[in-house]
Amino acid sequence: MIGRLNHLAIAVPDLEAAAATYRGVLGAKVSEAVPQPDHGVTVIFVELPNTKIELLHPLGDNSPIAAFLQKNAAGGIHHICYEVDDILAARDTLKAEGKRVLGDGEPKIGAHGKPVLFLHPKDFNGALVELEQA
Amino acid sequence: MIGRLNHLAIAVPDLEAAAATYRGVLGAKVSEAVPQPDHGVTVIFVELPNTKIELLHPLGDNSPIAAFLQKNAAGGIHHICYEVDDILAARDTLKAEGKRVLGDGEPKIGAHGKPVLFLHPKDFNGALVELEQA
Repeated sequence: MIGRLNHLAIAVPDLEAAAATYRGVLGAKVSEAVPQPDHGVTVIFVELPNTKIELLHPLGDNSPIAAFLQKNAAGGIHHICYEVDDILAARDTLKAEGKRVLGDGEPKIGAHGKPVLFLHPKDFNGALVELEQA
Repeated sequence: MIGRLNHLAIAVPDLEAAAATYRGVLGAKVSEAVPQPDHGVTVIFVELPNTKIELLHPLGDNSPIAAFLQKNAAGGIHHICYEVDDILAARDTLKAEGKRVLGDGEPKIGAHGKPVLFLHPKDFNGALVELEQA
């Protein structure tokens, strides 16, 4: 079912400082900040040869990462995104196996313009898992 | 400086259950359990098309992930590993920029037989970063 690791997301308290670390001492290719008001985050993409790191910072009220940053003031690894060929088939298989899909179970359009779903961390070794249609 | 994302490590309280989830409902290619007494962990490798997930479970006394699992009983994303071409040059650059290298600062031979170093999470947005010689 799962394919490529599409990205790893790190929630950060200071987006420009985090970008400076990745662009500077770590020498990676780093995008400008991209506000994503529909997702309640501003994102900076770190392009690695085989995948991406997404640096996330809260945007607006009710950001989905606000509580995480309150608990983890220095930031932290927030979620991991796997690609799937067919997100509806993946969802149905997961639900049939008793895995919990977050929200109303309907895919939303994610940060890359493709349908995404999030899965309950308790069902995946404490890791928040995002699935993205490949 | 940093190249490929070599792997993402998830600490898990039940290694066989975690492997069953990745092998089963997630349909990934999953290795047998590999004890690594020198590192205080038993590892199962999940092979994705572009990178690896490492499922880590404590092995022996003083496992480096024991405290993490005490704090995160369900498990959680433990660290992220970036490849570098020259680990000693990378270390010296990081130290010159005030970034903290864990332990005595000398690379150890990691799970893949190559030199590795760990960097202080507080200097990298709360994420524990491993560097591995490519």
